Amino acid sequence: MGEGIAFMGGDYLPLEEAKMSIFDTGFLHSDVVYDVTSTWNDYFFKLDEHLERFARSCAGFHLENPYSNAETAKILAGACEKTGIKNAFVHMHVTRGEYPEGSRDPKLCENQFCAYIVPYIWLWGEEKSKKGVNLFISSIERISSRAVDTRCKNFHWGDLIQSQYEAYEHECDDSVLCGPDGNLAEGPGYNIFAVKDGTAATPDSNCLEGISRRSTIELCEMEKVPLETRKVAPDELRNADEAFVTSTAGGILPVTAIDGAPLGNGAPGLITSRLSESYWHRREEGWCGTTVADILAA
Amino acid sequence: MGEGIAFMGGDYLPLEEAKMSIFDTGFLHSDVVYDVTSTWNDYFFKLDEHLERFARSCAGFHLENPYSNAETAKILAGACEKTGIKNAFVHMHVTRGEYPEGSRDPKLCENQFCAYIVPYIWLWGEEKSKKGVNLFISSIERISSRAVDTRCKNFHWGDLIQSQYEAYEHECDDSVLCGPDGNLAEGPGYNIFAVKDGTAATPDSNCLEGISRRSTIELCEMEKVPLETRKVAPDELRNADEAFVTSTAGGILPVTAIDGAPLGNGAPGLITSRLSESYWHRREEGWCGTTVADILAA
Repeated sequence: MGEGIAFMGGDYLPLEEAKMSIFDTGFLHSDVVYDVTSTWNDYFFKLDEHLERFARSCAGFHLENPYSNAETAKILAGACEKTGIKNAFVHMHVTRGEYPEGSRDPKLCENQFCAYIVPYIWLWGEEKSKKGVNLFISSIERISSRAVDTRCKNFHWGDLIQSQYEAYEHECDDSVLCGPDGNLAEGPGYNIFAVKDGTAATPDSNCLEGISRRSTIELCEMEKVPLETRKVAPDELRNADEAFVTSTAGGILPVTAIDGAPLGNGAPGLITSRLSESYWHRREEGWCGTTVADILAA
Repeated sequence: MGEGIAFMGGDYLPLEEAKMSIFDTGFLHSDVVYDVTSTWNDYFFKLDEHLERFARSCAGFHLENPYSNAETAKILAGACEKTGIKNAFVHMHVTRGEYPEGSRDPKLCENQFCAYIVPYIWLWGEEKSKKGVNLFISSIERISSRAVDTRCKNFHWGDLIQSQYEAYEHECDDSVLCGPDGNLAEGPGYNIFAVKDGTAATPDSNCLEGISRRSTIELCEMEKVPLETRKVAPDELRNADEAFVTSTAGGILPVTAIDGAPLGNGAPGLITSRLSESYWHRREEGWCGTTVADILAA
């Protein structure tokens, strides 16, 4: 296993020692929420927003992070300091914990916090993530928010993983799924944007309220790109001039084909490139950032 | 942690040592299927049916059990022999495993088998499981089979766990959920049956094809109880003369109230009791059973 560090049970430990009981219902019932942020040049990106969303995810699942947001921030920053990783992928989760013997009452479990950091991850590797990918619009439905609230960031990925297998069968790189209403929802770990005639559109429901998604909406305003959050039909994506996805693992990433058919000239779109450059330029400068040192000194 | 034994990574080990990497996507993406059977008086119940369903669950998730069904049977029987537990709750699962570094392609993971046995578990403890429970019909929708195939036994329980919280808020013991079509689906770990005017009915879709459910359908035939598998509206459960759930963790268990309102006279129903007695009488005698010794000698 590569570079990085984990934090479990109150201690930092090597990644290969980060093991959990198979009896934690975070595993046995996927009774867990998580969040992912990143550092770039030692700047945490929108850390407060991530911690606030994480707290909302916990509350939505009746889970409680045993650490306050300030304590959590120090744990994460401490991991960066210990490893010296300047550009980090920063993961945290809270699991339900184990049932007391003879019980299956989730209220009686002691919730468990865990975090880890590793060097920054690009969704599809750095090269492909910049060059653009071919997404398949899956026949598998995204889990409905009426069943599991997609706004609580969770590990219910069975639909997403099977949609990836479907994408591979169709010689595509990855997938995007529709919600029960037939409109676009999201892909495995990312939000989706379609651009037509200079205007970007992104789904407004049955998807994670991604912080990279929200940051992109802010960037559209700063870069004067008209942006609509609304229902987006899958055919709008197929007929888009350009498209992109947003994720902590890469920021704004070009989509250059849908279902194997190129979008536009098959290269990353102009608006996509402008937004992505703007994102990375700002990240380099510490946009919405808090330094590791400032967190540790607070 | 109590009595029992686990099997992981090719070895038997104490339950408290049964730990998995947090990087196994069986956890991180709930990319895992499982099965549960039981032994009673050293007889495994319908072991071949369980192993065949487990294999179908694996196939449905593009997972592969590294052990053949015959090898899996020997692993489970070996756990019984080592512990001497005669009445056992027998769990097995296959997780996706870890992604190779820098990849998120599930095809490249090495799937991991794990099993454990513990003394037989009653869903709500032995006393309550026999006396009957008060179920709440949840406002939360069961995950649609169009998203995650409920016929593949999986850990996507976010909807089920939150429905339990809703049940507790309404002073009920546990919950039952409806599918996206508004008809009854299943509860957390059990199938549901409603009995009206001597005829039992159980949902035919968006639920696990439970082996206890199927056994109950067989028992209904043997005990001359008319049985329908079809769509069952929640009001049919509210207005039932009696109701029960079926689970490996208890067999056939009475439901004595719905949403706080007693069914019939509020005691376990006559048909429920007849079926449950028939089930346990047959289990005692080794109905559809294979002995631990026979499996180990095969």
